[in-house]
Amino acid sequence: MGEKLKYGMIGGGPGAFIGAVHRAAIRLNDEADLVAWADVIPEAERLAAGRDMGVSDDRIYGSFEEMAAAEGSRADKLDWVDIVTPNRFHAPAAKLFLEQGINVACEKPLCFTVDEAKDLIDTAKAHGCLFAVTYTYTGHVMAREARQLVRNGVIGDIRMVMGEYPQDWLLDTLETITEDNKPWRADPKLSGRGAAVADLGTHIENWVNYVTGLKIDSLACNLDVFGEGGVLDNNVEALIRFENGATGIYWTSQVAIGFDNALKIRIFGDKGTIEFVQEENNYLKLSLRGEPPRVYSRGAGYLTPEAAAYVRVPTGHPEGLTEAFANIYKDFAAAIKDKKTGKQVNEADYGYPTLEMGLSGVEFFNKCVDSSEAGATWVKVDY
Amino acid sequence: MGEKLKYGMIGGGPGAFIGAVHRAAIRLNDEADLVAWADVIPEAERLAAGRDMGVSDDRIYGSFEEMAAAEGSRADKLDWVDIVTPNRFHAPAAKLFLEQGINVACEKPLCFTVDEAKDLIDTAKAHGCLFAVTYTYTGHVMAREARQLVRNGVIGDIRMVMGEYPQDWLLDTLETITEDNKPWRADPKLSGRGAAVADLGTHIENWVNYVTGLKIDSLACNLDVFGEGGVLDNNVEALIRFENGATGIYWTSQVAIGFDNALKIRIFGDKGTIEFVQEENNYLKLSLRGEPPRVYSRGAGYLTPEAAAYVRVPTGHPEGLTEAFANIYKDFAAAIKDKKTGKQVNEADYGYPTLEMGLSGVEFFNKCVDSSEAGATWVKVDY
Amino acid sequence: MGEKLKYGMIGGGPGAFIGAVHRAAIRLNDEADLVAWADVIPEAERLAAGRDMGVSDDRIYGSFEEMAAAEGSRADKLDWVDIVTPNRFHAPAAKLFLEQGINVACEKPLCFTVDEAKDLIDTAKAHGCLFAVTYTYTGHVMAREARQLVRNGVIGDIRMVMGEYPQDWLLDTLETITEDNKPWRADPKLSGRGAAVADLGTHIENWVNYVTGLKIDSLACNLDVFGEGGVLDNNVEALIRFENGATGIYWTSQVAIGFDNALKIRIFGDKGTIEFVQEENNYLKLSLRGEPPRVYSRGAGYLTPEAAAYVRVPTGHPEGLTEAFANIYKDFAAAIKDKKTGKQVNEADYGYPTLEMGLSGVEFFNKCVDSSEAGATWVKVDY
Amino acid sequence: MGEKLKYGMIGGGPGAFIGAVHRAAIRLNDEADLVAWADVIPEAERLAAGRDMGVSDDRIYGSFEEMAAAEGSRADKLDWVDIVTPNRFHAPAAKLFLEQGINVACEKPLCFTVDEAKDLIDTAKAHGCLFAVTYTYTGHVMAREARQLVRNGVIGDIRMVMGEYPQDWLLDTLETITEDNKPWRADPKLSGRGAAVADLGTHIENWVNYVTGLKIDSLACNLDVFGEGGVLDNNVEALIRFENGATGIYWTSQVAIGFDNALKIRIFGDKGTIEFVQEENNYLKLSLRGEPPRVYSRGAGYLTPEAAAYVRVPTGHPEGLTEAFANIYKDFAAAIKDKKTGKQVNEADYGYPTLEMGLSGVEFFNKCVDSSEAGATWVKVDY
Repeated sequence: MGEKLKYGMIGGGPGAFIGAVHRAAIRLNDEADLVAWADVIPEAERLAAGRDMGVSDDRIYGSFEEMAAAEGSRADKLDWVDIVTPNRFHAPAAKLFLEQGINVACEKPLCFTVDEAKDLIDTAKAHGCLFAVTYTYTGHVMAREARQLVRNGVIGDIRMVMGEYPQDWLLDTLETITEDNKPWRADPKLSGRGAAVADLGTHIENWVNYVTGLKIDSLACNLDVFGEGGVLDNNVEALIRFENGATGIYWTSQVAIGFDNALKIRIFGDKGTIEFVQEENNYLKLSLRGEPPRVYSRGAGYLTPEAAAYVRVPTGHPEGLTEAFANIYKDFAAAIKDKKTGKQVNEADYGYPTLEMGLSGVEFFNKCVDSSEAGATWVKVDY
Repeated sequence: MGEKLKYGMIGGGPGAFIGAVHRAAIRLNDEADLVAWADVIPEAERLAAGRDMGVSDDRIYGSFEEMAAAEGSRADKLDWVDIVTPNRFHAPAAKLFLEQGINVACEKPLCFTVDEAKDLIDTAKAHGCLFAVTYTYTGHVMAREARQLVRNGVIGDIRMVMGEYPQDWLLDTLETITEDNKPWRADPKLSGRGAAVADLGTHIENWVNYVTGLKIDSLACNLDVFGEGGVLDNNVEALIRFENGATGIYWTSQVAIGFDNALKIRIFGDKGTIEFVQEENNYLKLSLRGEPPRVYSRGAGYLTPEAAAYVRVPTGHPEGLTEAFANIYKDFAAAIKDKKTGKQVNEADYGYPTLEMGLSGVEFFNKCVDSSEAGATWVKVDY
Repeated sequence: MGEKLKYGMIGGGPGAFIGAVHRAAIRLNDEADLVAWADVIPEAERLAAGRDMGVSDDRIYGSFEEMAAAEGSRADKLDWVDIVTPNRFHAPAAKLFLEQGINVACEKPLCFTVDEAKDLIDTAKAHGCLFAVTYTYTGHVMAREARQLVRNGVIGDIRMVMGEYPQDWLLDTLETITEDNKPWRADPKLSGRGAAVADLGTHIENWVNYVTGLKIDSLACNLDVFGEGGVLDNNVEALIRFENGATGIYWTSQVAIGFDNALKIRIFGDKGTIEFVQEENNYLKLSLRGEPPRVYSRGAGYLTPEAAAYVRVPTGHPEGLTEAFANIYKDFAAAIKDKKTGKQVNEADYGYPTLEMGLSGVEFFNKCVDSSEAGATWVKVDY
Repeated sequence: MGEKLKYGMIGGGPGAFIGAVHRAAIRLNDEADLVAWADVIPEAERLAAGRDMGVSDDRIYGSFEEMAAAEGSRADKLDWVDIVTPNRFHAPAAKLFLEQGINVACEKPLCFTVDEAKDLIDTAKAHGCLFAVTYTYTGHVMAREARQLVRNGVIGDIRMVMGEYPQDWLLDTLETITEDNKPWRADPKLSGRGAAVADLGTHIENWVNYVTGLKIDSLACNLDVFGEGGVLDNNVEALIRFENGATGIYWTSQVAIGFDNALKIRIFGDKGTIEFVQEENNYLKLSLRGEPPRVYSRGAGYLTPEAAAYVRVPTGHPEGLTEAFANIYKDFAAAIKDKKTGKQVNEADYGYPTLEMGLSGVEFFNKCVDSSEAGATWVKVDY
């Protein structure tokens, strides 16, 4: 295994679910140690939390600006920084670290505007940095299997794509929101133009793009704001046209009672259909024309080698969310190691979602908002 | 049980699947006998088939016009006529029988145009006739349960409706279609402006309307024609706005590999969610806010009395398509019997889908075609 | 179709669920009319019920003895008699009709003792009568598919058989039973030595035997009587050894909360596994070694011709219990018609469960009771 | 979080799946570091592997005997040792470490004989050591939920228990076994008297005991050896009688085609039924009498506090095998920390499976073998 990589993190302190998952996933891989951390919480709390994560006091920072400056000037620079802050800090934080020549892994949605995203692409290129956008659900073994089956032509030319992602957790939260007590996700200034469409919609957009390579040509999107406390979209319904002539429907909701986190994607080709359900991530359903549907099981011998490479425990022993994140970090660590050895790195070859996919997501949700504001009319998507 | 009713049928001769199902459903109820039949097949074949169905030779006809005239002039008029012809004959045949004062049960879609549908409504009213449109899937016990749960306020105010109805049977058929060998469903002159949208889309539209009472305010619909032999829509994707402010998505397809006849409707309220899957028609999923989803089983003691009235065999002993049809005929026979005793009949109280629902379906698919022809833009639906 | 057959029925009057299902199934086929009926209910009620079923007054009888005598002496003898009485009348009634040369269809379990069953076999042979035992679940299309897949060697040599059949309906009934108010199923004198084991256990035994042809060599069976009102077994657990060296487990229960009528059979060979779930009778799961499990759908093009012959409605349009019964009657009618034309009839070729299968069930449940009474020790089964 | 614990491991080197999972689970918790390791593989390989795990050279050992001696004499003794060797080393290794006063976590089955197990209990007590047996499937959140629901009386008095655990992985392995090339699991000298019954059967026995507290009174067990290469049981079928009068069936198999790792337990009480399926470990099905079955989702607000305490990621974000192991280690670490602070530790209060449960498993599989050797007759279980 050799020397472990060193990474830093911004955000994700006590109580932040997603930061803890990122760190757990990285520990699962056992390829990198957390050595620096920044958060804006009070100093005493911050120091306690940082020490708990095993970070030495001199590398626990009160802001990402401070951290970028200090870490950028070290000889033993971070191998990467992990950005798990609220969405509005993604772009400024990422930019500062890229300018220090530090690779970045960033939560989705990448940022608020297409311009920001393009600027990040330029900055990363200028500084020779790698950049992963941690679209979790591409990390599942069966997402990799789906991608490979599509690439192998198993389902033929794609005709329709049905993506849905209902949740219901917002219902309780909605009722606690008042003017004085708004979480950042309910404040457009803090969360950007889109809420569910940015938070969940981009997962659909990315998964489909990641697995199929299809580009969206245009879309018509309706955003709903249900509930009295609601100020931003919590239900999203969109018709999609892809550049290859395929069409589709994306739906996501945060007020769909009875659904936990039910990302489900069905991709229909002229030879077969693939169905992936995130909550049953150890399986993939494949239906070939004229044959009985079959259920692929993660870890089975018939998987493609490209997917089998990510299997950690035998078939029937469930893997979950943490492994999905860990697979993305496994890919990212592989690219970082190759870059350190001076190898030419083509990020698209490594399996993790790229900065270009981050841009694509930002364009997607902005076009959805544009469409909805224009009465759910069709808008062209031109990334 | 008393005297059995007498009914006639138009179409549905040898090889026609749906006619046989209607007759079987009516036999299941054991409330009516087939006594007259018309079809356009050659006489020898017709006579053989009619005798096989138990119809006496003098009431086997070569056309519906001939049958309407002959049957209309009998003293012992038919209690109803059953229309299971290709779609384009629905309206003219129904009209002729209504004019003879004969009640009508007719397959969906009711007819081609809104004007035809309105004319049928007027004609039925003028002649005091009852009229059922046999939207099969409203006949399932669990459709009745869903309707009653909504009426009882169990899921609260409806916010979203997701309806889908994928099939894949057309794939094989598509490849056998040539200019000289077109089934009526592939010929716009014979099948009307819409194919999948009329055949399947109206099932979604009706089921939702039947169960929730919601009216569509406007829609944006994309129709696709996939495959070389395709001339009419075989994939339908629509965004829906309802008059009460709810929104939704309807999708149906005849080229969705791996799906047999997968009508699935999810209705989301602010208190709960109902999910009905036609292929698992003995069950209904109900999710109440903050509680674990529960699966209702047809025949169980906790069903509403309104649904329980249709249970034929105990829970766990599957009912299917035939029972769904039979339930609609059970409702229709009840209305006919009441009418015969001189009772005032309000058709909406009997449970079977009404002529107004037939009109609603015709408007729906025509508006879908209008929208699609205008680039999947929004069109107002004003029935 | 030609002339319809004529059949009679014993038992199954008002309120008797199973008699109504038999008649409905026969109507579904439209191959036979009910022309004679006997029941022991009061005369006025009997006459009303019989007329309702379309039976003429002179062929409505107050006992099966009376009916056997009267019908046996007619020139236009019944094509068959249908026995749907409480279990203890199966044998005496069947015997009387066989002696009149009338074919018999009888509910399971066939009778109480092995001697009775053997006597019926002898009597049927002596009088040249056909005899079907209506083990419902062999009538499902996917039961026929399972049988054919086994016959075709698809799953190889059978190693294990897991059969289970839990229900929970008895729980409510149990609590209403008192010494003075016992249903016949709770009275050993009326229902025989076994309750759940005879009523449900024989369904497992028969289905496995029907589909695989395997014979039981020996078994060890534990019978439980749960609940205060319980006097007869309502939970059955048995280890099974088959003559070919395979082993298995049969479990059935009437007090398994949460289960409606959940017959489920899994047959494991050295090449593959078949799984049939009665409540999902339109599907059959097939797992071949080293391949992803696949789900066969009733009506699909890949079914064996032997099973496809029983498909009534297209794939995705559910069939249920009534169709299962109807398929058994379809088989039985075919044999009767062949017999009437003088053709040599080998009953095993027609698909319906035979009198020998009835005997096998009687031996099975008696041996289960023997085993349980001896402390759930192993007993040899030697039919 | 404070100071991390220090643990050692025996076995689980390169290629050993289960050792890697244990280490990953412990990393997930981030409460302990691996500091010592022993394995019998060649020195160069061992050193490389040990360094890879972050162990310093002086604490990488060539045998557990060497390690016990060296580690036992250190001032900074291990907080616990983790035993993941082949089964036959469990008892001797555990004993040596206990004698050094080092707490032990050991894979199941605990050991070969009841005497060995009792000796371990005595030794642990004599040296004041804690001991966890890592029965994985008790670690799932929904196993904890099941246990608490039973304890809360939700399903009432238990009547029946159905446990099954089919796999099919052995099929391929069986065919590669020759006299000269036997894995340890196929050699009775190395693996003990039972194979599937010890490896998988004890998981059923333990899960049921862990969740319900029920003790087995007696059992009748049939062991099969299918396949030419088979020398030890690979299919296990047992009837069970519990001390409280409940009965049940346990089945496990390694040659059940189509099943990956399908542990499934159903517990039937007089008020309700619980169903747990390991491959769907984020859910638990609860059926209460007279009510529709409901599906509990890990992480939902309605979970009992006792189970909710183990939730790591929100509902709908799957947890899996690694989290199950991690939960057991979380419990064990809590007990170790309490012991270190001088607190009186009652192991049964901490949630991890105890040494007594290990003994119970050893008695279980030995009695199963006894029964099978005596013709699957009933044997008393008297632990």
